[in-house]
Amino acid sequence: MALKRYTEAWVDDVFFSIDATEHLHHETTPFQTIDFYASKTFGRFFTLDGLMMVTERDEFIYHDMISHVPLAVNPAIKKVLIIGGGDGGTAREIARYKHIETIDMVEIDERVVRLCQQYLPITAGMLDKDPRITLYFEDGLAYVKQVAPASYDLILVDSTDPIGPGEGLFTQAFYTHCFKALTDEGILINQHESPFFDVYREAMLKAHKKLKTVFPIHTVYQFHQPIYPSGHWLFGFASKKYHPLQDHQPKTWEAFGLKTRYYNSDLHRGAFALPSYVKDLLDHE
Amino acid sequence: MALKRYTEAWVDDVFFSIDATEHLHHETTPFQTIDFYASKTFGRFFTLDGLMMVTERDEFIYHDMISHVPLAVNPAIKKVLIIGGGDGGTAREIARYKHIETIDMVEIDERVVRLCQQYLPITAGMLDKDPRITLYFEDGLAYVKQVAPASYDLILVDSTDPIGPGEGLFTQAFYTHCFKALTDEGILINQHESPFFDVYREAMLKAHKKLKTVFPIHTVYQFHQPIYPSGHWLFGFASKKYHPLQDHQPKTWEAFGLKTRYYNSDLHRGAFALPSYVKDLLDHE
Repeated sequence: MALKRYTEAWVDDVFFSIDATEHLHHETTPFQTIDFYASKTFGRFFTLDGLMMVTERDEFIYHDMISHVPLAVNPAIKKVLIIGGGDGGTAREIARYKHIETIDMVEIDERVVRLCQQYLPITAGMLDKDPRITLYFEDGLAYVKQVAPASYDLILVDSTDPIGPGEGLFTQAFYTHCFKALTDEGILINQHESPFFDVYREAMLKAHKKLKTVFPIHTVYQFHQPIYPSGHWLFGFASKKYHPLQDHQPKTWEAFGLKTRYYNSDLHRGAFALPSYVKDLLDHE
Repeated sequence: MALKRYTEAWVDDVFFSIDATEHLHHETTPFQTIDFYASKTFGRFFTLDGLMMVTERDEFIYHDMISHVPLAVNPAIKKVLIIGGGDGGTAREIARYKHIETIDMVEIDERVVRLCQQYLPITAGMLDKDPRITLYFEDGLAYVKQVAPASYDLILVDSTDPIGPGEGLFTQAFYTHCFKALTDEGILINQHESPFFDVYREAMLKAHKKLKTVFPIHTVYQFHQPIYPSGHWLFGFASKKYHPLQDHQPKTWEAFGLKTRYYNSDLHRGAFALPSYVKDLLDHE
């Protein structure tokens, strides 16, 4: 069995590599290049345009943190919109809440979903099994632009970096449309890049600058994602009225009885306790 | 200028690489092989037996977290013992506290210190400038075995992994000697490996199992260290009487007026909020 070393440049002189035991699939769609691999330590994983997206081994971290944080701040969330998230892991976690009524998922590239259903059932296996989930294969920016005001309690932007198909999901126009699409109780969580390496830090600061002009409440929270550059990754928490700590409802969330491998109520608070250099960066933006 | 790619196997099929702009030094001592490199993104860095130790770019994270956490729990610490820590960064941070009386540093390999003084003044520059710092070039286990009881308020074990020269610093005998060397107010902080990859998780669990039989209070706390395997790293907090959260004294610590780039009082609490899978691992050990 020939090993193929998958290598990603985290920055132009820093690299992360995984020895793949198999290159399962390679395809170029109108939007991007998609590759699926198998490996010993990380299990199966896939990349878009050569950048690591999801592995079987550590996907629970990302999907716990994007999903459970907002539900522990507003446990009454009923209507959820997922932008991106083609691997299905975010929809899977949201679908664990029995009281949630609708989960609309807008993914620009249907092939990502279909290939994840084939190769990554751990994340995508739920997509065709839960009647509350509706898939839309279209551009996320165009979708939120035309949606009726106050359609959703929660929008989860589970996107790639702001280069290529993900670019529109980091614009002021997109955030403004999301604001309108949210109810007065609305929360937006978005993939918010990383503070450590220059290029990701710049993307983090740009997103923060835009979001705080649109939403009255905006901050970021952190988690350990080994496959992403530096391992130090962020989600943004933007909201019309709820503060992620002052309005945190750990008891209500714990009463849902969900078993989670990364998220818990202490960690919820801890995730918002940012390093001083990150706070300084955000404060000065 | 020829680039040399420095590569470390995080596990046998996962790799982290930095393009070095210069290989500054290579030397084999009676204890280990030492290499110093220069690079664009991480600045200068050095490795022991091919494993990444310290970079100019992210050393502030490790040295903030090993030093300031115990001083914010017992701000009256006066006598400090550092085991290992040859790069000098831990001594540098501890020396920022004017009220600390003595800083004894026991490093097995004098060459690490001398080379860091030459190539990494950012961490080692303080070692020959602060009269409170005394260097001992001997084995840490032998040192704590012969030291008078209750000699120190704080022991910081700034060691390599439990393979090679660092092995003795992960033994029950070592922890027992440390317990005796500590005052009744004593705290021990040790490099505690990582929960994510198998080999580091096993080392984490072994250290925890031993420490909790010796110290009445033992837990771990986490931080983001991009250069270490998975980027998710831990220190252990072992203590005779102080609990890291119940006895946390943020106001007293803040009154020291130290500017820190990673550590702060909120992050102190957040660092002890562990992911569920890490809590489960430690609880079941």
